[in-house]
Amino acid sequence: MSPQHTEFVKLNEPYVASFGDKGNLALPPAKKLIVVTCMDARLDPAAFLQIKEGDAHVIRNAGGVAREELRSLIISQRLLGTREIAVIHHTDCGMLTFTSNDVHSIVKDAAKGNADVAKRVEAIDFLEFKDLEESVKEDVAWLKNQPLILPETPVSGWIFDVKTGKVSQVA
Amino acid sequence: MSPQHTEFVKLNEPYVASFGDKGNLALPPAKKLIVVTCMDARLDPAAFLQIKEGDAHVIRNAGGVAREELRSLIISQRLLGTREIAVIHHTDCGMLTFTSNDVHSIVKDAAKGNADVAKRVEAIDFLEFKDLEESVKEDVAWLKNQPLILPETPVSGWIFDVKTGKVSQVA
Repeated sequence: MSPQHTEFVKLNEPYVASFGDKGNLALPPAKKLIVVTCMDARLDPAAFLQIKEGDAHVIRNAGGVAREELRSLIISQRLLGTREIAVIHHTDCGMLTFTSNDVHSIVKDAAKGNADVAKRVEAIDFLEFKDLEESVKEDVAWLKNQPLILPETPVSGWIFDVKTGKVSQVA
Repeated sequence: MSPQHTEFVKLNEPYVASFGDKGNLALPPAKKLIVVTCMDARLDPAAFLQIKEGDAHVIRNAGGVAREELRSLIISQRLLGTREIAVIHHTDCGMLTFTSNDVHSIVKDAAKGNADVAKRVEAIDFLEFKDLEESVKEDVAWLKNQPLILPETPVSGWIFDVKTGKVSQVA
């Protein structure tokens, strides 16, 4: 498979052509909302929640782990005025299928005894989870108890179903 | 402003109604691509790069700082088969407008002398940048030299222009 980025300029052209007045959007999110969700390829939060350009900060990583993104959450709240956080994990998440030890082994095996690589990867907690709903509730609880998140921030927790496209609130 | 999440189920309904056969999409990204970009509300990478559900992992944080997301990048490459990384920062980024010291002061002032809050926030590097193009090049160089990223991974660096919707390659 040839690199995808060689197509980016072409893929971007229709968006530029129909950009309209989006160049006038303000930097602070209009809905004062942060969505934290998974990097999973099947998730398009802008589409499944009708988030338009200018509406909300969207933070994404493997699993949608909010506690890994404190830096971004603080910047969003303190400098850009957001006042609400929604955490959205999803069914069939890769994070339910492995342990950190598994990843350590995969990377070490591929590195064929390279001690530097072994040491580096073993230092990483891959933040896997065993129970989907519990993972959302834990993140929501963490946010509600985090001293650097603004007090009284509404925090909700959701699961996106990759088989139906539907979101359900669990916290 | 009332919490936005009370509208999520309603906002999600049209997506569910037109979900089609997306429930059959595979977990590994079809384009074997990771896009790392900013959480900024004005960016909709799925729209401006025609990324369809199932195509690519999308990682987002304040600034689109790739080096903060090593955990997710490793999971994506080693467990889910991605083979290319594109880093996309953007014009008018909030990360160009402050220093970590500024954020430390804002949070400490709001906490009115709370020593625990002061200690916690001072421990955080907010990873601001002074030069936009340089920030992309630094992230690309970091990825190319990172021992836990697969060797030979094509890594490209881009700037999205919030005034025009256009992407331009800078690395």
